[in-house]
Amino acid sequence: MSQSSFSYRRRVQFADTDMAGVVHFSWFARYMEEAEHALWREAGLSIASADSDIGFPRVAVAIEFLAPLHFEDEFEVHVRIDAISRRSIRYSHTITRGDTVVARGTMTAVCVRRTPLPLKAIDIPQNILDRLAAAE
Amino acid sequence: MSQSSFSYRRRVQFADTDMAGVVHFSWFARYMEEAEHALWREAGLSIASADSDIGFPRVAVAIEFLAPLHFEDEFEVHVRIDAISRRSIRYSHTITRGDTVVARGTMTAVCVRRTPLPLKAIDIPQNILDRLAAAE
Amino acid sequence: MSQSSFSYRRRVQFADTDMAGVVHFSWFARYMEEAEHALWREAGLSIASADSDIGFPRVAVAIEFLAPLHFEDEFEVHVRIDAISRRSIRYSHTITRGDTVVARGTMTAVCVRRTPLPLKAIDIPQNILDRLAAAE
Amino acid sequence: MSQSSFSYRRRVQFADTDMAGVVHFSWFARYMEEAEHALWREAGLSIASADSDIGFPRVAVAIEFLAPLHFEDEFEVHVRIDAISRRSIRYSHTITRGDTVVARGTMTAVCVRRTPLPLKAIDIPQNILDRLAAAE
Repeated sequence: MSQSSFSYRRRVQFADTDMAGVVHFSWFARYMEEAEHALWREAGLSIASADSDIGFPRVAVAIEFLAPLHFEDEFEVHVRIDAISRRSIRYSHTITRGDTVVARGTMTAVCVRRTPLPLKAIDIPQNILDRLAAAE
Repeated sequence: MSQSSFSYRRRVQFADTDMAGVVHFSWFARYMEEAEHALWREAGLSIASADSDIGFPRVAVAIEFLAPLHFEDEFEVHVRIDAISRRSIRYSHTITRGDTVVARGTMTAVCVRRTPLPLKAIDIPQNILDRLAAAE
Repeated sequence: MSQSSFSYRRRVQFADTDMAGVVHFSWFARYMEEAEHALWREAGLSIASADSDIGFPRVAVAIEFLAPLHFEDEFEVHVRIDAISRRSIRYSHTITRGDTVVARGTMTAVCVRRTPLPLKAIDIPQNILDRLAAAE
Repeated sequence: MSQSSFSYRRRVQFADTDMAGVVHFSWFARYMEEAEHALWREAGLSIASADSDIGFPRVAVAIEFLAPLHFEDEFEVHVRIDAISRRSIRYSHTITRGDTVVARGTMTAVCVRRTPLPLKAIDIPQNILDRLAAAE
């Protein structure tokens, strides 16, 4: 896997905060997913295109919170593909605000065929593998 | 239309709050929708059942915010069907915490056939009209 | 009031969507607020700066939904200050995706002193009025 | 630590779902937190009472997603205190719908003094330890 990472820039919105005055921890999972989808767009892909029967549900997520994010902070989500198996992709994320590491996380998604229900794990299509490899 | 209303009881969760220390205003729209769906369940209906091709997208919402809601507050959403036309339902909501009126709102949804796209407005099925009328 | 408007550009994120396949209606209120806060930044202001005791809670919001937004759609929120009184600001919003008007809304916020509780409505400080006027 | 767990019952709301037709994965972190706060209430405590200067920010969360949750599903979050150190609490969660295990997770929170900023880790007050121990 590549040692480089894709960076996604974002600003904290008011609705992301909670009564403790900082970003609610559940938002970090969303920031990580936003960065993943931006990486796919960078690769010329959409992770959920209207005409595709393939989906990538998450099977695991883990996050360590190292520093708070506040309203209007600008921050970056650095996302890297950590491992790809035939049917799953594991991403590794680092969230930074300037020189401060705000959070680290990993997220694993599996490739599924969406219809007919129930979801069925399938091999990741080769063109997706090729494009993700080229984007890194 | 009936003068009675259906009441839905809810507690404020931590993730509903924002850095101002109160429930974020966008959550009131969700509370109103939760009460609507509870009213449908009371009528023996699901507003989005897996085997139905009918949906009820919102076409308008308006809310006045009269008092804040805080973490762990218990409150009630009183929802009433204000008007039903062939293809739309207008709800009227009052949100209260004890004797305090916290917010008032209205929400209008239209009945649509979901496939094929694009959505197409259709008449509300008679069995839905009957059940909603009986539930009031 | 100015006839011009400030434009805020945004992309639909996966977490903004619901099981109907479109952006959940509660998100439009958040998009409208994001645009408001971007307008304040454009004016050199923060609507919730850490060192200020002033806040701007919403007292009313109304939205008409004219067309759906989908995952990864890029759209613009055009926000205009519709009316300013001594203690309140009413914004008017138009959300567009290309040539399509997706939604229209209004939102009214009042100026309050945040401590001691309870909140107390106060006059909008002159420097805020001046900067918002200049930004338009 | 006790082998028993506290159970929190919840229904999936429409706004919890995403365009894949299931609950968005970020919501599981919120469900876990809702159950934690319900456990605190069961112990006669509020994790964020208005008159307290103590807070419990999360430092880590990890979740495995084993089965999807759908609109209107009723489910249970079983939460157990896994470990308590002088300054932190680790919870372990199992989310079930009937006999199906939907997700498993862990969440760690630390005890902090909230003012003056920055947050400072402190020992968990004895009365909180006593009440949580009694609630299990």
